[in-house]
Amino acid sequence: IKSKLPNVGTTIFTVMSALATEHKAVNLGQGFPDYPMSEELTAKVAEAMRNGHNQYAPMPGLIGLRESIAEKVEFLYKTKINPDTEITITPGGTYAIYSSLTTILQPGDEVILFEPAYDSYIPNIEINGAKAVPLPLTYPDYKIDWDLVRSSITAKTKAILINSPHNPTGSVLDKNDIAELKSIVAGTELFIVSDEVYEHLIYDELPHESMLKYPELFERSFVNFSFGKTYHCTGWKLGYCIAPAAFTKEFRKVHQFNCFSCFTPAQVALAEYLKNKDAYLSLPRFMQQKRDYFIELMKNTKFDLLSTSGSYFICASYGRISEESDKDLAIRLTKEAGVATIPLSAFYHNQKDDKVVRFCFSKQNRTLQQAVERLMKI
Amino acid sequence: IKSKLPNVGTTIFTVMSALATEHKAVNLGQGFPDYPMSEELTAKVAEAMRNGHNQYAPMPGLIGLRESIAEKVEFLYKTKINPDTEITITPGGTYAIYSSLTTILQPGDEVILFEPAYDSYIPNIEINGAKAVPLPLTYPDYKIDWDLVRSSITAKTKAILINSPHNPTGSVLDKNDIAELKSIVAGTELFIVSDEVYEHLIYDELPHESMLKYPELFERSFVNFSFGKTYHCTGWKLGYCIAPAAFTKEFRKVHQFNCFSCFTPAQVALAEYLKNKDAYLSLPRFMQQKRDYFIELMKNTKFDLLSTSGSYFICASYGRISEESDKDLAIRLTKEAGVATIPLSAFYHNQKDDKVVRFCFSKQNRTLQQAVERLMKI
Ligand SMILES: CSCCC(=O)C(=O)O
Ligand SMILES: CSCCC(=O)C(=O)O
Repeated sequence: IKSKLPNVGTTIFTVMSALATEHKAVNLGQGFPDYPMSEELTAKVAEAMRNGHNQYAPMPGLIGLRESIAEKVEFLYKTKINPDTEITITPGGTYAIYSSLTTILQPGDEVILFEPAYDSYIPNIEINGAKAVPLPLTYPDYKIDWDLVRSSITAKTKAILINSPHNPTGSVLDKNDIAELKSIVAGTELFIVSDEVYEHLIYDELPHESMLKYPELFERSFVNFSFGKTYHCTGWKLGYCIAPAAFTKEFRKVHQFNCFSCFTPAQVALAEYLKNKDAYLSLPRFMQQKRDYFIELMKNTKFDLLSTSGSYFICASYGRISEESDKDLAIRLTKEAGVATIPLSAFYHNQKDDKVVRFCFSKQNRTLQQAVERLMKI
Repeated sequence: IKSKLPNVGTTIFTVMSALATEHKAVNLGQGFPDYPMSEELTAKVAEAMRNGHNQYAPMPGLIGLRESIAEKVEFLYKTKINPDTEITITPGGTYAIYSSLTTILQPGDEVILFEPAYDSYIPNIEINGAKAVPLPLTYPDYKIDWDLVRSSITAKTKAILINSPHNPTGSVLDKNDIAELKSIVAGTELFIVSDEVYEHLIYDELPHESMLKYPELFERSFVNFSFGKTYHCTGWKLGYCIAPAAFTKEFRKVHQFNCFSCFTPAQVALAEYLKNKDAYLSLPRFMQQKRDYFIELMKNTKFDLLSTSGSYFICASYGRISEESDKDLAIRLTKEAGVATIPLSAFYHNQKDDKVVRFCFSKQNRTLQQAVERLMKI
């Protein structure tokens, strides 16, 4: 069997979560909460199942859920989205990004993306016969170097892949980034594929600069979201893609022959639950407390935390601890200290090693405390 | 935006289900049950959610569920499958088939499949830059013409796509088919992609000829299953792919960057529920009663039913009713008689019209009765 993805091994998230389980480590690696999700929401799913909502949802998703999303988008981003023609429910944000790229890419196309990058992006591009053009973010603030973007665009560039709030670094796009992006794409046929799964995890009162807010950007965008990240249920694998009608039409052609439709009972439940504004408006404060608590605790260690303004991740430089590669350190941290992290080199196509690891802080305070107590011994 | 699937419109299932809703028709089109699923199973999912199983499942699926599948496969097909390396949980059977084909196909490859065919197969092949080679099944018994298969194999043939029990016709592979298939693939590098989502819906005491039963076939196969079809919950979108370890390794590379993992609470529930042998062993009898009831009722109409030995579909020739195209008839049946069906031409790349429509009989007896009362007036 000839591999379609010869350069791909098991994802780092799987590797580190397995190692964490094996060594009974506190898992601050893979991004998921360890506290309970809303009981109201799980009860609604149970009710939907009892009420017989167990057969195929419509291919684009339950219309009630799409309407709730459109209402939310209008409330948050002052943009009117047509739920009928511009929203598609997907089995997760990762799938939405994969489908966005599969919808637009032809062999030979190029896609600009920024590293460190979520590890599915490059395989998603390559499996479509296209070429990934990874550009490094600046270090240590992980911002986009827009001049580098300008000089990297070729006649083959089909899309720019944007991710804000950014995984793994927590950097976020600001107004200046939006202005740069607008000026770069103006008058071109470039697509934007935007990964906004952390839209509600953004701190210090910063606004989320969604592509949905800017008509000049949205008109060329596939904008991808995740219910799992928002409602603390990463295992539900439910998300959505918002794109202009002509793009959505093509997106759905890919989707209808890939997964076809998504878990119906959760769609029924979320159609209602999305109307609860407080459930998402309270998120920045909720998660910022965790971030700040973790930052405070980590002052007792020799890790040097970098700044994070969004997502539930924070990176740390460990130059004061050792000169090991970040992978060796991450393995040793898991085995010896009992704390799993993600080495940042896993997010670079060339395994670039800045001696940085990523911590996930969407955890109970006592989990964070236990982890830091262990890290103090390193 | 340049279409990746220029020949694709909205699936016929979506079209007919929407038309059915619009005209308040009895929906015997899209394949799904209208009776309740097991309350025990939905209660188990609710319990799993309450118990906090709401975060990412492992990428290949919950090991407990994969172990239960391996036990079931050994019990049913006398084959030992390694749950660790040969089973991957997927968001549905359609996705499993898409991923199987995406795993093996390179641009220029050819795939032999049989028509009428489930409508995702050809787009799944074409989106990978490969060429679909659709061969007609014999009419009206819908069997494979193995000589035609032999003469259609070229140096470019990469795989044969098999589906038994067969959607939309209900034909099933028998021992002779297996012998033919064995002799054709022996000594070649051909893959088999097998769609066995209706494994338990097989009648008249016929055995299900799974690829899993025959080592000479399984060694080259991706075998795809659906929990939705088995447990009357098509909207759960959960299935699995069984393939030899080397294939599974490549399949998971595709899967991990497409959907990554599947709805965790249902996996927890099914890991337990799969041990209940009666839940699946009772299925043939349960569904055969519905088939036989529907056949009996339909004697009162001018439709000429074809035979079906599996799946929850039965086809009918309507030559005694009209000379309309099958699409026109299907639309008229929905609008005028209030019964939705699927026109068989939708399952042919060239829209071949044998004046046949497909009925789905996985319905409550009163639904079937109401439908037939309406059909009697046509
Ligand atoms: C799909 S597993 C990875 C989860 C995640 O988003 C992360 O840890 O970066
Ligand atoms: C995925 S919708 C189609 C359901 C089905 O299997 C059928 O009706 O043939």
